[in-house]
Amino acid sequence: MNDRPQTGFPASLLTQTVEEGFELAIKLSRLGVKKTQPDMKVLKKLRAKYANNADSLTAASQVVAINFQTVAAANNYWRT
Amino acid sequence: MNDRPQTGFPASLLTQTVEEGFELAIKLSRLGVKKTQPDMKVLKKLRAKYANNADSLTAASQVVAINFQTVAAANNYWRT
Amino acid sequence: MNDRPQTGFPASLLTQTVEEGFELAIKLSRLGVKKTQPDMKVLKKLRAKYANNADSLTAASQVVAINFQTVAAANNYWRT
Amino acid sequence: MNDRPQTGFPASLLTQTVEEGFELAIKLSRLGVKKTQPDMKVLKKLRAKYANNADSLTAASQVVAINFQTVAAANNYWRT
Amino acid sequence: MNDRPQTGFPASLLTQTVEEGFELAIKLSRLGVKKTQPDMKVLKKLRAKYANNADSLTAASQVVAINFQTVAAANNYWRT
Amino acid sequence: MNDRPQTGFPASLLTQTVEEGFELAIKLSRLGVKKTQPDMKVLKKLRAKYANNADSLTAASQVVAINFQTVAAANNYWRT
Repeated sequence: MNDRPQTGFPASLLTQTVEEGFELAIKLSRLGVKKTQPDMKVLKKLRAKYANNADSLTAASQVVAINFQTVAAANNYWRT
Repeated sequence: MNDRPQTGFPASLLTQTVEEGFELAIKLSRLGVKKTQPDMKVLKKLRAKYANNADSLTAASQVVAINFQTVAAANNYWRT
Repeated sequence: MNDRPQTGFPASLLTQTVEEGFELAIKLSRLGVKKTQPDMKVLKKLRAKYANNADSLTAASQVVAINFQTVAAANNYWRT
Repeated sequence: MNDRPQTGFPASLLTQTVEEGFELAIKLSRLGVKKTQPDMKVLKKLRAKYANNADSLTAASQVVAINFQTVAAANNYWRT
Repeated sequence: MNDRPQTGFPASLLTQTVEEGFELAIKLSRLGVKKTQPDMKVLKKLRAKYANNADSLTAASQVVAINFQTVAAANNYWRT
Repeated sequence: MNDRPQTGFPASLLTQTVEEGFELAIKLSRLGVKKTQPDMKVLKKLRAKYANNADSLTAASQVVAINFQTVAAANNYWRT
């Protein structure tokens, strides 16, 4: 799960563990947001609000779940 | 379905039964939320509200359904 | 589609017919809600409201559709 | 795409054409709603409202799209 | 991507190019809406509103994305 | 990831890297929006608003996640 130095983007979807795969899914979800709103100051302000709203948190965890489907499939579900 | 001691994160997506797989899907959904809002006191307060709102409950059960797709595929749908 | 006596949880995702598979998808959707709000009295009250709201019904039927994808894949789409 | 006489539920997910598959996806979406709100009078009243609301229509067409994924996979995407 | 003369419905999910596949996904999304609201005059009026609402546009593009998954799988992702 | 000169539409879903695949998923998400609202002036105005709304950003990143599933599958998850 080495990152590409310039963009912070993962070079591969393969991870050693389920947990690392889940972290990668979270990372992909955040990268999806940053591509639309690259201003970190704005993102931090928004985060303060939605982290205290149950429905916003559920929506965020849904995006993570969708990206985790992708990462888990890439890793053959860490079945070995 | 042994957990990693430090993080409470499952070491594997494989489970013995459908029910354990469903429990794992719920766990993944909650881990997705905790990664955004790690403060358990805030989470408990939010939970009290959304557990009494039908649309919030439906949204939560949708995230569980998405994670259950992943876990079920990992387990080849417990077909044997 | 035998249930486990203690939890009402299905022991298998395999069903004889498409219709039974759809019923199982509905059951999984409801189990997802009950895990968050186990109080049946609260659930009944909420149900009375959202069963009369079109958007809530659509959202509920979306969760069923996602769970039906899982059940249908488990059954190889009842192709035989 | 014969229906089971008593429940109106399809006996199979297999259809001759893409269009019939899409119709089946719509049928499954409506069956998902009817299971929660079986009162046809209520459903008709709700329909009058949401059929005139753009976001409700988009949400309904999303459920159809999810069910169409299932039906299309069942039919090997009518590739022959 | 020949259409069936009477219904405007595609006879196949197979397309020559990625772009045609995306157009087909858009078509399927619109057919899903038309099945619920067949009155073109109403649809045009609704369109004027939601085409100027960011969240409505995102929701519409989500349905397209779901249908594009189906079309892309049908075409083996145009891998050749 | 050559684009077709006239439409800006990708000729293929295949990319060299995960990052390029993610960029393609973002592109597909935006193309989905542009098909409904082709007026770039309107889109820019809407973007200014939703880029400052947490829930809108989450919804946008969900569409990207769905399109990324498609692109990742097309590329066999860049497993080599």
